[in-house]
Amino acid sequence: MTAGAGEPSATAFVPGHITGFFSVQSAAKPAQSGSRGAGVTLTDGVEVTVTPGSGLRLNGESTSVTAVDSVRSRLGVDAAVDATTPLPLGAGFGVSGALALGTALAANAVFGCGKSENELITMAHCAEVEAGTGLGDVVAQARGGLPIRIDAGSPSHGRLDGVAARPHVEYVTFGERSTADVLAEDTEALSRAGESALSRLLEWPTLDRFMTAAREFATDADLLTDDVADAIDAVDEAGGDAAMAMLGNTVFAVGDGLSAAGYDPERCRVDAGGARLRPEE
Amino acid sequence: MTAGAGEPSATAFVPGHITGFFSVQSAAKPAQSGSRGAGVTLTDGVEVTVTPGSGLRLNGESTSVTAVDSVRSRLGVDAAVDATTPLPLGAGFGVSGALALGTALAANAVFGCGKSENELITMAHCAEVEAGTGLGDVVAQARGGLPIRIDAGSPSHGRLDGVAARPHVEYVTFGERSTADVLAEDTEALSRAGESALSRLLEWPTLDRFMTAAREFATDADLLTDDVADAIDAVDEAGGDAAMAMLGNTVFAVGDGLSAAGYDPERCRVDAGGARLRPEE
Repeated sequence: MTAGAGEPSATAFVPGHITGFFSVQSAAKPAQSGSRGAGVTLTDGVEVTVTPGSGLRLNGESTSVTAVDSVRSRLGVDAAVDATTPLPLGAGFGVSGALALGTALAANAVFGCGKSENELITMAHCAEVEAGTGLGDVVAQARGGLPIRIDAGSPSHGRLDGVAARPHVEYVTFGERSTADVLAEDTEALSRAGESALSRLLEWPTLDRFMTAAREFATDADLLTDDVADAIDAVDEAGGDAAMAMLGNTVFAVGDGLSAAGYDPERCRVDAGGARLRPEE
Repeated sequence: MTAGAGEPSATAFVPGHITGFFSVQSAAKPAQSGSRGAGVTLTDGVEVTVTPGSGLRLNGESTSVTAVDSVRSRLGVDAAVDATTPLPLGAGFGVSGALALGTALAANAVFGCGKSENELITMAHCAEVEAGTGLGDVVAQARGGLPIRIDAGSPSHGRLDGVAARPHVEYVTFGERSTADVLAEDTEALSRAGESALSRLLEWPTLDRFMTAAREFATDADLLTDDVADAIDAVDEAGGDAAMAMLGNTVFAVGDGLSAAGYDPERCRVDAGGARLRPEE
């Protein structure tokens, strides 16, 4: 609680989410649209505090995020959103999805909107899809762990499973990359590679297989940058296991893979349980 | 990790689960059977450590639980299971479901079985249903929070939502009660009351409505014991909100409801994220 005396306030935590591979699933309705694929949620995430008011602050700076505006409007509330995160922005960690989902969870608590968890996830998912800033982050962030998106879309339409592992994760970012720009291009070849990677993971849903499938996807979909390819190779030579974050100029590795290869990465764990309201003190 | 040097070992945590109301959903296959209803998962839960071997120890005592045996057999492994819990046994906290699910998660990690989270949840759910020791605990414990079981059964068949709240919880137990005995009786009136409670919750899925629906269910289904009825009344008179755990001789309350009414309860929080492997150190 960060509010002054008597001012209602609620805080939600939403884990960061790195997608390892995906295919685009378009439908007429945003609730049925999204992506199939798999990824990793992180204990590094976004803390979102809502109070009555207006505006959005991220790490102390005023900003504007379309998906957050859309969630406020869907809930019909005047919410001031104050968010903090250690995650880099525009680098493939699902920060916009986290802001949308965290706003939905916290605003529902502050304003007594009476929405269920699935309804709040659906609002944030549709807001992200319509804004073009993400396809699968919100549903993955709601679940936590290493989510597999078997069918795309909001909880009424989509279907999730998970890889049963909870490793440490390291990550390093080499700069921003626009999700919207990549999704605006022809995604047919990318989606074919994503479907193939998902089939291989579902045959044997382990952490090793996920990392291998993610690496193959980045190559097959022709998304590797030089910095990313160099880092993945360096981790491999040091005996580790790394892949590229979709979509960002970012590499993630299992355990101490990046530091063992001489990088200076951030380090966290796989998030255990997904987006949640912080309990009242 | 509690194993000796070099011995493979994994530990899973599974939250306790109190059902507030339910209806029995029978089908030919255990994966499609279970219950609809809603409940509360607890940060008080069961820690399950698996190593190669045999036997089951619970809080240091050798014991036998049919659903655990069944999970071992479904996975085809020889697993020694060592579990600890602060929860009372046979009192409506889903300890048998927690043992089955924790064994599945930890044994999959130790023996490299390559099963997904949904496959492991399905194994534990079917083991519980076949043993007659629970209908909805396993899927609720896998989700965490305040799970609503909209459709019964394992993840391929069932459907879950959640009440978006994370209160503190107090509970007090007045002795054991057999789930199997109650389920062996005619459950038609009970299930009608459970369906009615679920409809009321889904209209307005908040914590207040959940507690009200659970209280009404206990009366309508004629399951109240004298101790439980007295405690619920006492909490109500003190301005709090309490209900009965299904199926146990147990009362749970939101916040400090039971201590404010003069009881000496256990106190914990709603579990945030559901059953999970403990991360490797």
